[in-house]
Amino acid sequence: MGVQRLRIGMAGLGRVGKFHAMNFLERTPRAELVAAFTPDTNELAWGRVNLEPHGVTLYDNYDEMLKHPGLEAVAIGTATSVHAEEAIKAIEQDLHVLCEKPLSIDIEVCKAVVAAAKKRPHLKVMCGFSRRFDESYREAYAKMELGLIGRPSIIRSQTCDRYDPKTCQFFVDYAAWSGGVFVDMAVHDIDLTLWFFGDDVVPKSISAHGITAVQPELQKHQDYDNAVGIVEFWNGKIAYYYCSRMMAHGQEDTTEIIGTEGKLAVNNNPQSNLVSLYHTGGITREVPPNFMGRFGAAFATEANEFTAACLDNTPLPMKLTNAVKAVEIGAALQEALRAGKQIHFDQIGRRIEKAQL
Amino acid sequence: MGVQRLRIGMAGLGRVGKFHAMNFLERTPRAELVAAFTPDTNELAWGRVNLEPHGVTLYDNYDEMLKHPGLEAVAIGTATSVHAEEAIKAIEQDLHVLCEKPLSIDIEVCKAVVAAAKKRPHLKVMCGFSRRFDESYREAYAKMELGLIGRPSIIRSQTCDRYDPKTCQFFVDYAAWSGGVFVDMAVHDIDLTLWFFGDDVVPKSISAHGITAVQPELQKHQDYDNAVGIVEFWNGKIAYYYCSRMMAHGQEDTTEIIGTEGKLAVNNNPQSNLVSLYHTGGITREVPPNFMGRFGAAFATEANEFTAACLDNTPLPMKLTNAVKAVEIGAALQEALRAGKQIHFDQIGRRIEKAQL
Amino acid sequence: MGVQRLRIGMAGLGRVGKFHAMNFLERTPRAELVAAFTPDTNELAWGRVNLEPHGVTLYDNYDEMLKHPGLEAVAIGTATSVHAEEAIKAIEQDLHVLCEKPLSIDIEVCKAVVAAAKKRPHLKVMCGFSRRFDESYREAYAKMELGLIGRPSIIRSQTCDRYDPKTCQFFVDYAAWSGGVFVDMAVHDIDLTLWFFGDDVVPKSISAHGITAVQPELQKHQDYDNAVGIVEFWNGKIAYYYCSRMMAHGQEDTTEIIGTEGKLAVNNNPQSNLVSLYHTGGITREVPPNFMGRFGAAFATEANEFTAACLDNTPLPMKLTNAVKAVEIGAALQEALRAGKQIHFDQIGRRIEKAQL
Amino acid sequence: MGVQRLRIGMAGLGRVGKFHAMNFLERTPRAELVAAFTPDTNELAWGRVNLEPHGVTLYDNYDEMLKHPGLEAVAIGTATSVHAEEAIKAIEQDLHVLCEKPLSIDIEVCKAVVAAAKKRPHLKVMCGFSRRFDESYREAYAKMELGLIGRPSIIRSQTCDRYDPKTCQFFVDYAAWSGGVFVDMAVHDIDLTLWFFGDDVVPKSISAHGITAVQPELQKHQDYDNAVGIVEFWNGKIAYYYCSRMMAHGQEDTTEIIGTEGKLAVNNNPQSNLVSLYHTGGITREVPPNFMGRFGAAFATEANEFTAACLDNTPLPMKLTNAVKAVEIGAALQEALRAGKQIHFDQIGRRIEKAQL
Repeated sequence: MGVQRLRIGMAGLGRVGKFHAMNFLERTPRAELVAAFTPDTNELAWGRVNLEPHGVTLYDNYDEMLKHPGLEAVAIGTATSVHAEEAIKAIEQDLHVLCEKPLSIDIEVCKAVVAAAKKRPHLKVMCGFSRRFDESYREAYAKMELGLIGRPSIIRSQTCDRYDPKTCQFFVDYAAWSGGVFVDMAVHDIDLTLWFFGDDVVPKSISAHGITAVQPELQKHQDYDNAVGIVEFWNGKIAYYYCSRMMAHGQEDTTEIIGTEGKLAVNNNPQSNLVSLYHTGGITREVPPNFMGRFGAAFATEANEFTAACLDNTPLPMKLTNAVKAVEIGAALQEALRAGKQIHFDQIGRRIEKAQL
Repeated sequence: MGVQRLRIGMAGLGRVGKFHAMNFLERTPRAELVAAFTPDTNELAWGRVNLEPHGVTLYDNYDEMLKHPGLEAVAIGTATSVHAEEAIKAIEQDLHVLCEKPLSIDIEVCKAVVAAAKKRPHLKVMCGFSRRFDESYREAYAKMELGLIGRPSIIRSQTCDRYDPKTCQFFVDYAAWSGGVFVDMAVHDIDLTLWFFGDDVVPKSISAHGITAVQPELQKHQDYDNAVGIVEFWNGKIAYYYCSRMMAHGQEDTTEIIGTEGKLAVNNNPQSNLVSLYHTGGITREVPPNFMGRFGAAFATEANEFTAACLDNTPLPMKLTNAVKAVEIGAALQEALRAGKQIHFDQIGRRIEKAQL
Repeated sequence: MGVQRLRIGMAGLGRVGKFHAMNFLERTPRAELVAAFTPDTNELAWGRVNLEPHGVTLYDNYDEMLKHPGLEAVAIGTATSVHAEEAIKAIEQDLHVLCEKPLSIDIEVCKAVVAAAKKRPHLKVMCGFSRRFDESYREAYAKMELGLIGRPSIIRSQTCDRYDPKTCQFFVDYAAWSGGVFVDMAVHDIDLTLWFFGDDVVPKSISAHGITAVQPELQKHQDYDNAVGIVEFWNGKIAYYYCSRMMAHGQEDTTEIIGTEGKLAVNNNPQSNLVSLYHTGGITREVPPNFMGRFGAAFATEANEFTAACLDNTPLPMKLTNAVKAVEIGAALQEALRAGKQIHFDQIGRRIEKAQL
Repeated sequence: MGVQRLRIGMAGLGRVGKFHAMNFLERTPRAELVAAFTPDTNELAWGRVNLEPHGVTLYDNYDEMLKHPGLEAVAIGTATSVHAEEAIKAIEQDLHVLCEKPLSIDIEVCKAVVAAAKKRPHLKVMCGFSRRFDESYREAYAKMELGLIGRPSIIRSQTCDRYDPKTCQFFVDYAAWSGGVFVDMAVHDIDLTLWFFGDDVVPKSISAHGITAVQPELQKHQDYDNAVGIVEFWNGKIAYYYCSRMMAHGQEDTTEIIGTEGKLAVNNNPQSNLVSLYHTGGITREVPPNFMGRFGAAFATEANEFTAACLDNTPLPMKLTNAVKAVEIGAALQEALRAGKQIHFDQIGRRIEKAQL
């Protein structure tokens, strides 16, 4: 074929990595998945069945993959702890980077990625927040931009996962290094806030409260299975968040953008599809069990738009610095949660101690 | 007729008073509205047209009304500032009392009403929280009691009024003595919390944040047109509230009770009726414009159940002390909002100052 | 009291009769239920407990009740077979009449009631079609009249009852004299058609098909538990109907009025209340189990409006002749259903035989 | 790459043809679009921009395209009138065929395609009914198969297009050779009926009525812009259909499968996405404007499953004979509509004339 395609390598073939790999392989016509890396034996075995026959070279060493002939870009879906290091290495190899969120749970490490990217402005470096690519969120944003809700003033947003007894222990262990629920889960809601309110908003004060309703073991990592937080901004706007791993019915990520003249809601009636069952107990709709059920199409859009930006040298739909700011706010919420006190900032975002009553 | 009817007098014929009066007149078969009081000339004129022809004696003096021959009960729908005084006077005249919420915005005054009622245990003294009488909230409560959602752990509840430019100035003036949004509006959500979580819950910590998005004049009374608050309880439960006077679409009072095994939502799809209009812009449902549109039937149920409790000497559906506790929590939220700090309580509810980070 | 109230007697204290009686007793302030008649011993016993203590005189003879001192109006809720005779007797005693639908399943008998009423134009004689008093149908009608859907052209309307094994045998026996599903059930949908399309519409052709999916015994009465019918009118409009006694989930009476520029739907999301239960199987709403759950408020409105029309000598909200026309169309649908052929009418409504292909 | 891909050619690059072409090009990883044919100059120009750069050879002669080196399959999206001829030619060239519905509006011509396919059983020949590939319809079918609604007995299904003044004249002209609304539109609903009721159902009687509410010019082709039809089957089941080109709000294809113990509804709440706008007029959801908005993903699934069946020699998800049967029933509905009479069949499907009343 005469059409140029982006040669991309996938780092990580776990749950999210596999999903990205298949998107680049099957649903991203302008990309060519040429390589994949994972240190994990089972994941390599999966790659041998699902990727190798399609011409994808497998690697068990990340640095080796970066040297794959003709490689132009890397998608990173490994463990959070290595995201930043891998991203920086790729940038230094002059490769475009699509990195799963978050860059890191450590702000300074996040900033190092931004600094590396800044040195090579011709590269496309993006931290993927899938909701930015979701058709419904985009429609809501477009309607807000049309002025249909006046001045956006309040955001309510939640990231609520289905409770799954099988993954309970995983999430307890994961809490040791996830950064906590606000960094791991609410970071999506915070990113939406930066999108809908504008990324120049400055937090004024932050409060948060949490409980362990179904996973008391989380307490050993000072984490929670249900948490509520509020961020008040200096420009007279408020965002409040709820994150939970306790939903019975499925994934329920709902967002409301409340303006002075109207409101936009995304997913206030969660549903897997357009089927309703009418039975002796009433009328029932099912709900997607997880983020892939809810955001599957958004991930494909993300892969396609990242590819287009690399090939056509067009701007990415989101700034890399936002990914840092979202983690910063998430970390402040987590701190407020753990410390049991409100956190205050001045108008240029510096922490201040407020005189107490 | 041979059937005994409760002879009741109505104090106050403003917006809510008229509504109560008509309920007792037309939708409460076991009650007989025999008297009504208001100091307001216009309201008296309304009473002359709408009540007098039905045998209701009008008074412009509350004390006189209390002496109406055979009077057995009083419903109080006057300004909040006189609720408590009028309630105590009625109790001292040995009359049953149904008082609009709140008893007072001053906790000590609230407690004086409770003390007066305690001395006459044969009297029925109730502070009316209309949602306790709403069919949907009752159905949700019944389902929770059946164990359908496991252990209730998180409550999200909001009281959101339609923005009405005509009443803007009223609400600014009203803020001077309303106690603020959490006492005036969220008190309903707090009362629901006491109902669904149990009235023995003890707050552990409280946070709140607010903005003035459409009524900046509220700031002179340290009040807000949009506010978000969180109450964490000692038994590992959290309630979070949103109150607003800025809705474009109508009244939207939504509540979610989230348990360890399921969730109950009340009014997540607000609607005036069962009509949908399909038009070139999509499919549209209308929303009730105010609390009477949403809770009209609940007010009638309240009047009937209060009447039945008085006539049959059966227990009231809610304790008077809850009305005090709801105001206490509302006032603490309002204080947290104004002070910009988290408020803490020990396990028996005493305020504590927490060492700061 | 100095206010005039309409003295009314209730004929019939079966399921619907009890419901009407309680409405006139408790929810119709301008009416006074003074008498009730039933030939049934159990129903009389119910009346002794529920009506007599409120001053209602009980009769086991209809003619005797008509002589009750000061009686001004009669509500008829007995068996369909005696509706007409009782209505005519009441009219001849110069009493207003509110008669349950249908007047009769025999058109000539229906017309006799109309003729009797015509002789005494000062009397209010109404055949109650409850949906005409339902808030949602009225809202839909108002929106249509505002022109929001252009020219109404198609009506889809269904009357679907919950399947109840306990009442199966009742409905089989009832089919012997009910006139069949289109006369008994779809008559409501036909009445709605006359309301929304105008009562001057003339049927052009009629088709119908039916099955017995759960009550094969209905076949001995040439009746069906599920039936679909189409009525095409001479002015280029079509109404189509579905009636069923087989719903698992509850009562589902849905109507769509489809115009050249929009559509109005009533009850396309059936629901008992505003509660949703989120559980491991999805999100569930319950549905009213029967017509009283769906149309309870409409019955009370009907009682109040009939009372007001009698007392104030104002027009009734619907013409008595419509009640005849609705039965006529229902009977033609039933005939088309039984005969397995389309029925045709000329432009002034006379039956014609159409040459076959 | 080492993976075998199906080399396919696209016939027709009009609205549907373009859509199929892009699906095979971008969303069908196992297919390779190698050729495309259209006699239309504008469509060829489009192909030069959108297909040629991706290695697709363009043809203005169908027979030439069939000789494209290595071609294995053809997708046909040309005008209905040439579907059959093109399908037969492809079959005779030993190519797999995916043909847009309908094969033809002439039953005998449809049967000729079936006969041609029968001679080459190793070929995959499918007439594409997109709803069979829709996730929601498949979920409904799976739930029915699980027995969740008991014995399916009634199907209500509608195909309703948005009214578009720009395409009015097109549809009037199109009516000359489309076979009429029941063949052109309801054929989808009939195909669903064959799926959900089983393709061995035999019609017993058929009725239909139609109007021209917005396009009176259709009458010259004996066609209608709104039509309602009923098909009663010999096994005690009924399907009824509504088709319209008059919707203001968008595409609304709704199906209900009503069983003896429950009901399944597909798309009873049409929606473009998960966004709701809350505004002064209420709460609004948008609706897809056309079948591509509603069934876009289904078309991609269709392309992928057809491709897989060809490559792996696995069974197609639907029988070719159904495509004939659906047209046969559609044509009978259209005949009943035009003739104004009910049509009857015996138990093996032969037409009978029924003695008239």
